[in-house]
Amino acid sequence: MSSGPAAGPVRRSREVSRELRQRAGFPSWGLFTDLYQLTMAQGYWQEGLAERRANFQLTMRRAPFGGGFAVFCGLGPALEAIEKLRFEAAELDALAALRDAEGGSLFRDEFLSALGGQRAAVDLWSPDEGEVVLPGEPVVRVEGPLLQGQLLETAMLNLIGYSSLVATKAARIAWLAAEGDPVLDFGLRRAHGPDGGLSMSRAAYVGGCSSTSNVLAGALWGIPTAGTHAHSWVLAHDGELESFRAFARSQPGNCTLLIDTYDTMAGLENALIVAREMRDRGERLRAVRLDSGDLEELSKGVRARLDEAGFEAVRIVASSDLDEHAIVRLKAAGAPISLWGVGTSLAACRDDPSFSGAYKLTSIASSTDESEALWRPVSKRSEDRFKRSDPGRLQVRRSFDGEGRLRQDTVYHLAGDGPTRTGRQRDLLRRQVLQGERRSAAESLGSLRERVRRAVAALPADLRAFEVGAEVLEQRVQFDESLQRLRRAVAPPPS
Amino acid sequence: MSSGPAAGPVRRSREVSRELRQRAGFPSWGLFTDLYQLTMAQGYWQEGLAERRANFQLTMRRAPFGGGFAVFCGLGPALEAIEKLRFEAAELDALAALRDAEGGSLFRDEFLSALGGQRAAVDLWSPDEGEVVLPGEPVVRVEGPLLQGQLLETAMLNLIGYSSLVATKAARIAWLAAEGDPVLDFGLRRAHGPDGGLSMSRAAYVGGCSSTSNVLAGALWGIPTAGTHAHSWVLAHDGELESFRAFARSQPGNCTLLIDTYDTMAGLENALIVAREMRDRGERLRAVRLDSGDLEELSKGVRARLDEAGFEAVRIVASSDLDEHAIVRLKAAGAPISLWGVGTSLAACRDDPSFSGAYKLTSIASSTDESEALWRPVSKRSEDRFKRSDPGRLQVRRSFDGEGRLRQDTVYHLAGDGPTRTGRQRDLLRRQVLQGERRSAAESLGSLRERVRRAVAALPADLRAFEVGAEVLEQRVQFDESLQRLRRAVAPPPS
Repeated sequence: MSSGPAAGPVRRSREVSRELRQRAGFPSWGLFTDLYQLTMAQGYWQEGLAERRANFQLTMRRAPFGGGFAVFCGLGPALEAIEKLRFEAAELDALAALRDAEGGSLFRDEFLSALGGQRAAVDLWSPDEGEVVLPGEPVVRVEGPLLQGQLLETAMLNLIGYSSLVATKAARIAWLAAEGDPVLDFGLRRAHGPDGGLSMSRAAYVGGCSSTSNVLAGALWGIPTAGTHAHSWVLAHDGELESFRAFARSQPGNCTLLIDTYDTMAGLENALIVAREMRDRGERLRAVRLDSGDLEELSKGVRARLDEAGFEAVRIVASSDLDEHAIVRLKAAGAPISLWGVGTSLAACRDDPSFSGAYKLTSIASSTDESEALWRPVSKRSEDRFKRSDPGRLQVRRSFDGEGRLRQDTVYHLAGDGPTRTGRQRDLLRRQVLQGERRSAAESLGSLRERVRRAVAALPADLRAFEVGAEVLEQRVQFDESLQRLRRAVAPPPS
Repeated sequence: MSSGPAAGPVRRSREVSRELRQRAGFPSWGLFTDLYQLTMAQGYWQEGLAERRANFQLTMRRAPFGGGFAVFCGLGPALEAIEKLRFEAAELDALAALRDAEGGSLFRDEFLSALGGQRAAVDLWSPDEGEVVLPGEPVVRVEGPLLQGQLLETAMLNLIGYSSLVATKAARIAWLAAEGDPVLDFGLRRAHGPDGGLSMSRAAYVGGCSSTSNVLAGALWGIPTAGTHAHSWVLAHDGELESFRAFARSQPGNCTLLIDTYDTMAGLENALIVAREMRDRGERLRAVRLDSGDLEELSKGVRARLDEAGFEAVRIVASSDLDEHAIVRLKAAGAPISLWGVGTSLAACRDDPSFSGAYKLTSIASSTDESEALWRPVSKRSEDRFKRSDPGRLQVRRSFDGEGRLRQDTVYHLAGDGPTRTGRQRDLLRRQVLQGERRSAAESLGSLRERVRRAVAALPADLRAFEVGAEVLEQRVQFDESLQRLRRAVAPPPS
């Protein structure tokens, strides 16, 4: 089968994905940072602290959307940013051109020479991508030279934060609200730029969406793509019925008709005419789509009419400002909707559009040598417990009940004895990167999605609620005595 | 001055920007779309409608953040997407691999061959980038072959929507709240991925921010970069005073100290010690930064102490969940803050995170030939006036009072007589693209920013309010009689 210019057999999708991925280029991973990371880096270098071993942690302060958990997502892109961090001639020239407020060079030549050789040769611990994490927990721990750990702050927050936010929203919609009904990601048009749309569609699929409208995301990563038609299709024709007939001719194996351009119930009658014509040709209308109005009332009316006309197999797709709350309400009201299209609530995460994460230095060693490091735990003082960051080098012990349900997470300090080992337990943070090299190959998005599905299914009911109170979290997330001692001990040092 | 590997004189910033821009690559502008645009495109092509001349309009349904205006932003990236739209072998192979629900090819070979030759050879009218637009107005009008106008929907919404949202937020913060005080964009870490961060910083600067922490955005577009240091700088040292001394040594020409790591007023005393030491060396402490706590109380206390100690010139920078409302409150309370750092409110636009835009087919011609086109205005029926899209090919006439202030916008239908010409008026939508070619060179971000400043200054007081009621908008945005007649006339066609 030929396909346009490239005559000959269609190339395998994997090869096409590879070519498309090769076209992607980010201008600079070295400059993908806040300026202060680089001025601090220069300062550390001048003070002889650049190589001092340091521990940074990205902590999720609270779960998004008022819930009890987040889906940890964005690790793949974060690992790519670590591997690709470089300061080549263009980066160094760009930095050399920066001036301070007095007109002098912001960066010294000697520092830039040293920066030219920097890689992110850090170790990174985190959950596997797609695990669930609970509020107050460290979700990424970066250990390595102070300068390098500092440089990674912006990238880690940017890459983990938005992806985890979207994946969490998708999981709430797909696994908690739609209960396994297919959920279609229509969010590309509301995303933050073209590449923001790719981040969004990747995370939405990992979180639980079953397909995306984003053609490029589909081509890059093999996410199933889906779509129907827009109102413009109907308006471009000389009548709704004619437009439906044309769409059925064009898409006999994939025909979903949008019936609300003029009047939904009248549109349904036109769709039924086409459904009969398709049946006579041995084809079938797969679904009708509602995109406005009272979805409960309309879907019930449409379902009844479809059934009455003998089209029990034609399904109803709904879209129109849907989120997990709207879907739960519609399902509770018995709305016979089988597929859910979600856009703005995924892409913009309207009810909580930023991930509450902080990346902080939490321990600094007396030495550059890992084996000899004497660690000094540190933390910023804060009255606000949500702004507090715990000191130390931390790990999370997750315990499960007999049925494999998450029972409790315990945050503990690596230098202590750790929580008592009882029953089924495992440590949540695994070493994903050793000395800047990732330790395992990238996983397919499909396997990440499956990990999310299983992890959400293994949550206890109180953590699966859309709104989770502090008392539940205090029960489910414990802070080990070793850490509590450390919190008390880490007072501001003498000035 | 040498700078690392590239020994020799520092290259000019413009050359470095060019090299960095050349590294940027988006995998595919052709596939940067929702699947349904392509299935509709195939349908139009099969029906012989692909070349039919069509008019699409992107309408801003309501102004973001409850206000009365938006800053029109993102035109530059949108024009790039139009110019670069291509379907080469990789795109066509990716589409050829897609299957419909029956397992057949979603796209026919003949269609893909035809798609291979497609460009976006459309005409595009819009305001110049950086103009203000009012709710209910068309902000982009695309006229050209039906297939091409349809393919551009997703890109136009994605590229104009988020940029306009961020630029509007930045304008409210910088021009309406901070009243010209420098506003620093710290939003990169909360943006939607690396490229989302670039979109964000570009729009934030155009909208009114004076500098960005985003080093790459600075290097690509010459946006001034700024930054201080993080709490980690203090925590990495053996005491706050020592850390301040080290920072002053490292950044003598650019020294702002973050004083809230342990206790703000005690931190200020350490900063004062360093300020005196700097003064003795002929340097000067430029500012102290507050990032937590009660900013009004702290800034007043810090100001009084700085003045008392003879450091009247040391300024106060504040950050910590700031937005336009917080800045206005602080200024009204007399908080002596001179520079404002904003992050999450810019990047995530927390109080209204998606642009309310719709891109609709609004008129379709009887012919493929522009000169012979008989236009049929169309619109989707909707009870909801915010979901209504006006039919026709529309233009906006903007009128000004004697002082050059915006008096009124009138949306009118091009086929009618247009509003009566009186006083100072001009049409807002200009032809930016002719047959797919942009008509003027890209403008510098600095000139776009200046256009925003002037446009916001020329708004009447009622449109500059943070919350603008419907009665103001009904007065300021008129719909010409020609358009009102058209609305009444465009009834659903017979099915």
